[in-house]
Amino acid sequence: MTFYEKLKFDSNGLIPAIVQDHRTGRVLMMAWMNRASLEKTLETGKTHFWSRSRQKFWMKGETSGHTQAVKDIAFDCDGDTLLIQVEQIGAACHEGYRSCFFRSVAAPGQEIQITEPQLETPENIYGKK
Amino acid sequence: MTFYEKLKFDSNGLIPAIVQDHRTGRVLMMAWMNRASLEKTLETGKTHFWSRSRQKFWMKGETSGHTQAVKDIAFDCDGDTLLIQVEQIGAACHEGYRSCFFRSVAAPGQEIQITEPQLETPENIYGKK
Repeated sequence: MTFYEKLKFDSNGLIPAIVQDHRTGRVLMMAWMNRASLEKTLETGKTHFWSRSRQKFWMKGETSGHTQAVKDIAFDCDGDTLLIQVEQIGAACHEGYRSCFFRSVAAPGQEIQITEPQLETPENIYGKK
Repeated sequence: MTFYEKLKFDSNGLIPAIVQDHRTGRVLMMAWMNRASLEKTLETGKTHFWSRSRQKFWMKGETSGHTQAVKDIAFDCDGDTLLIQVEQIGAACHEGYRSCFFRSVAAPGQEIQITEPQLETPENIYGKK
């Protein structure tokens, strides 16, 4: 059974991909892939996704330069989620943080904490809008 | 703005939750939560999910004893994914592996590799069927 046959894409043809820094273990982001973006990811060694909001194929870093070089692609027991190890250039988050998961709560009713420094402003990454 | 107001549940009232070992950084699993399972998770300090296949509220470990004690709940920039740090008892995967992501490929056409030892057999965890 090939890798693709092990995977279950949802009714929209998509599978969620968790992206993790292969060195630090920091979870950087989660985004969705269709079969074409997964094939392109494997072919090029750079992550490609499907944007559900923009209905568009995109390469991570195509605008920002913050690309992700793929080191490994794991899939879960049900074959319906991917875990991709990458070498991340710069900030994974469009808000300029290393990880999109830069806010957290530790207990009910607790204040939301910012847990990491902002590396760049969105204006620096994408230009003024 | 409260924590819940920052979150975006999908059209089925669900949000994906990535579960990570708070000590090793190993990504253990991904499952779905509705608002009730997230509230129960925060209240009890143990992860609770919504099973899409069984249409059922469940506590992780309710059958296996392999519960997850919550250390932190982060959410991403779009508010549509959770990242939960836990202390995992035993195997997170129902197939007896520490992590559900126990298989991977590193390059196109490559063989699928099992990347970690199986801690227990499913029969040991759940009994013979």
